[in-house]
Amino acid sequence: MPDILHRVGIDAPPERVFQALTTLDGLRGWWVADATGDADAGGTIDFGFCKMRVIDAEPDELVRWHCLEGPEEWVYTEVTFRLEWKEGQTFVLFAHTDWKEPVEFMHHCSTKWATFLLSLRDDVEGGGGRPAPRDVKIHVGD
Amino acid sequence: MPDILHRVGIDAPPERVFQALTTLDGLRGWWVADATGDADAGGTIDFGFCKMRVIDAEPDELVRWHCLEGPEEWVYTEVTFRLEWKEGQTFVLFAHTDWKEPVEFMHHCSTKWATFLLSLRDDVEGGGGRPAPRDVKIHVGD
Repeated sequence: MPDILHRVGIDAPPERVFQALTTLDGLRGWWVADATGDADAGGTIDFGFCKMRVIDAEPDELVRWHCLEGPEEWVYTEVTFRLEWKEGQTFVLFAHTDWKEPVEFMHHCSTKWATFLLSLRDDVEGGGGRPAPRDVKIHVGD
Repeated sequence: MPDILHRVGIDAPPERVFQALTTLDGLRGWWVADATGDADAGGTIDFGFCKMRVIDAEPDELVRWHCLEGPEEWVYTEVTFRLEWKEGQTFVLFAHTDWKEPVEFMHHCSTKWATFLLSLRDDVEGGGGRPAPRDVKIHVGD
């Protein structure tokens, strides 16, 4: 099954990145401005267009979500953020896995995830994130 | 074998995007500022860190490169740009295929390609591209 993979490096310690991934305030700063729910282990986060169950949250190391509801192609997929401190920065190794087919929507989501991971980077580094609906647009009408 | 997939939509006709993919001036505007060689069908383009053979160039529809030299993980991989006019824009369906393994460098390249495809979009739309070495940085020391 095809996967979406990305990596960004963030000039901040892993605990700051982990916080941006496991708190509502954190997620609202870079992904979806009006996210609600519980972003900690076992919780369910409502991002409006999708709902994610937090199936793993290992402090400063790993966050994994399982998609409960959302776009048809997303349901049952998983989103993983692995954090690794090296070379004086926190690298985020990202994977959105278990897509059934490499549909055109998957191409779109891959590019979109890249912009959101850079939004995460910018937000954690203090430069300001670009959460939806102020997200970076990647096509006319996006 | 894992693939890198992306999609961007460009507010310009396919022939303008095709030109940005199959001329040195075009490629210098969004990917590598000092690219040399021949960017048309059958030619070899030297991007400095890699060399690509242009194995397909179907006007306004498809461009495909085969990597001759470059980072070890890139050699023998292929890069494909499919152009499709719909919804009042040219969609670029991008694929960098035939990676042997989903190594960490592949994660990096996936994010990097997203930034370069948005550079292509911005350049063709007249907003100015961000070719290397003025490319969007995605980690400390990038």
